[in-house]
Amino acid sequence: MKLHWSPRSPFVRKVMVAAQELGLADRITTIRTVAAMNTPNAALLEDNPLSKIPTLVLEDGTVLYDSLTICEYLDHLAGGRLFPAAGAARWQALTWQSLGNGFLDALILWRNEREKPVERQTQAWMDAFAVKTGKTLDRLESETSALDAAPFNIGHVTLGCALSYLDFRFADLDWRAGHPKLAAWHAAIRARPSFQATEAVDG
Amino acid sequence: MKLHWSPRSPFVRKVMVAAQELGLADRITTIRTVAAMNTPNAALLEDNPLSKIPTLVLEDGTVLYDSLTICEYLDHLAGGRLFPAAGAARWQALTWQSLGNGFLDALILWRNEREKPVERQTQAWMDAFAVKTGKTLDRLESETSALDAAPFNIGHVTLGCALSYLDFRFADLDWRAGHPKLAAWHAAIRARPSFQATEAVDG
Repeated sequence: MKLHWSPRSPFVRKVMVAAQELGLADRITTIRTVAAMNTPNAALLEDNPLSKIPTLVLEDGTVLYDSLTICEYLDHLAGGRLFPAAGAARWQALTWQSLGNGFLDALILWRNEREKPVERQTQAWMDAFAVKTGKTLDRLESETSALDAAPFNIGHVTLGCALSYLDFRFADLDWRAGHPKLAAWHAAIRARPSFQATEAVDG
Repeated sequence: MKLHWSPRSPFVRKVMVAAQELGLADRITTIRTVAAMNTPNAALLEDNPLSKIPTLVLEDGTVLYDSLTICEYLDHLAGGRLFPAAGAARWQALTWQSLGNGFLDALILWRNEREKPVERQTQAWMDAFAVKTGKTLDRLESETSALDAAPFNIGHVTLGCALSYLDFRFADLDWRAGHPKLAAWHAAIRARPSFQATEAVDG
């Protein structure tokens, strides 16, 4: 199967971490695909009219997206446990995943905004992103025991990728100050071989 | 259960359509919650640190989000079929849902952008949103037979809500021109009682 891929997309990284955890990484052929928010990619548009990555193309031509759909497909293919069966454990895992996805969406928009010329920035948005980031970190700090107690799942994958993206693009924030439990949780997650194999590189 | 709700959020509408389809609407207490992108809502932040709706609070205090998690939870609660079991039908339904969600994300950002003072608008973004909207409509036009052939699922719910949002916020686009099959598909979807009961009202 072919994956529209970039080394720096945190949503692509979710898929690659899942593939590593599930032992499927060598079945995925990555296609380097640039998908900037302001420049739709003509080749990618043929597979995904939103021009977003990750987008997975199966051998029979079936196209799957977004990261949630692809990760759940890979989990099913491998007979994995990244998506618990219906019940409290599943709703918890999916809500953590949604928190990680929404956190990443906010961080990506924040980064887009602060890279604009100052005269085109909207300060109220940047202030809102800062509030949401602080609240998300505080919430996660209070949930590290629950995260540690749950079997490793798609929630852990997503939150780990989100915190690593924060390190990658917002190194100035010093998020570990005031969040010592979360910092320790993230240190353990990023030491996993699946995270080590998919570390983003600047460029 | 309590739902942080707004009458005009298309993602909230997904949940309300699902609840209507599943016969669960009378078990949900809606709480009118304003969640503008640039003004985090203090009460909502206590339940969801991203200040996003829909957010569902269960009787035991468990909090679920986003719309996908909530809809799948409701489907499980009702023993419904909005989420097919693992297999090709599920990946198709989830990919349609992702297309609808991503289309809505693009439309909401486009609307935010075009409502800014002209000097703060980023034209390249608005051009990109227009391209993605056109490509998404073309893709859906070519998939109406597949949509008609599949049992009603979360993909139909999401795409129906997305097209209705396009009518609601982008009436100037005249998307039906050039997409006659999709227009007919949408007309049938919005005639369902679940859609009729959840129509957005301007204000």
